[in-house]
Amino acid sequence: MMIHSVYFWLKDEKKDECGRFEEALRALVKIPEIQLGHFGKPAPTAERPVTDHSFDYSLILTFASKEAHDAYQVHPDHDVFVDGCKDLWAKVVVYDSELL
Amino acid sequence: MMIHSVYFWLKDEKKDECGRFEEALRALVKIPEIQLGHFGKPAPTAERPVTDHSFDYSLILTFASKEAHDAYQVHPDHDVFVDGCKDLWAKVVVYDSELL
Repeated sequence: MMIHSVYFWLKDEKKDECGRFEEALRALVKIPEIQLGHFGKPAPTAERPVTDHSFDYSLILTFASKEAHDAYQVHPDHDVFVDGCKDLWAKVVVYDSELL
Repeated sequence: MMIHSVYFWLKDEKKDECGRFEEALRALVKIPEIQLGHFGKPAPTAERPVTDHSFDYSLILTFASKEAHDAYQVHPDHDVFVDGCKDLWAKVVVYDSELL
């Protein structure tokens, strides 16, 4: 089982297009290879030196296997998401974890 | 519902103490406030400019509420984890997400 975590920082001039981005995330997490699909915004937890609250959106997906993840990456609806939203983000960071 | 994601980079000279760290993570995720507790290592997904495979361990926890997360942070077993392992890590990054 693996977890694919993505953090998005939107461009300053695109921060008012959250509605479009949230709609695209909502469609993205319906890709059938995804086991559990969550997306969110920074939680108002305590400010600590280790906590990064600067991102605009997170996308946290679990997959039954790396093969399911790889199939998701090439699913046509994934292309629709990237092509439709890549003008919005300034930075994206991905962490892929294989669970122990 | 919220997700608390933590990425750990171990000190070079402590990378052979993975067994101790994994044992501590296994105990940590038993804290009752946690809804779902996962920990892992980097998955062998494709190298892409956005993907950071450099961390040593991830810890991904879901909580029913921010209050449950806050209770976890002050649980005595959380202190046991931090006090017992803080000599191992060189860097820790936390992302807290409030799910939409």
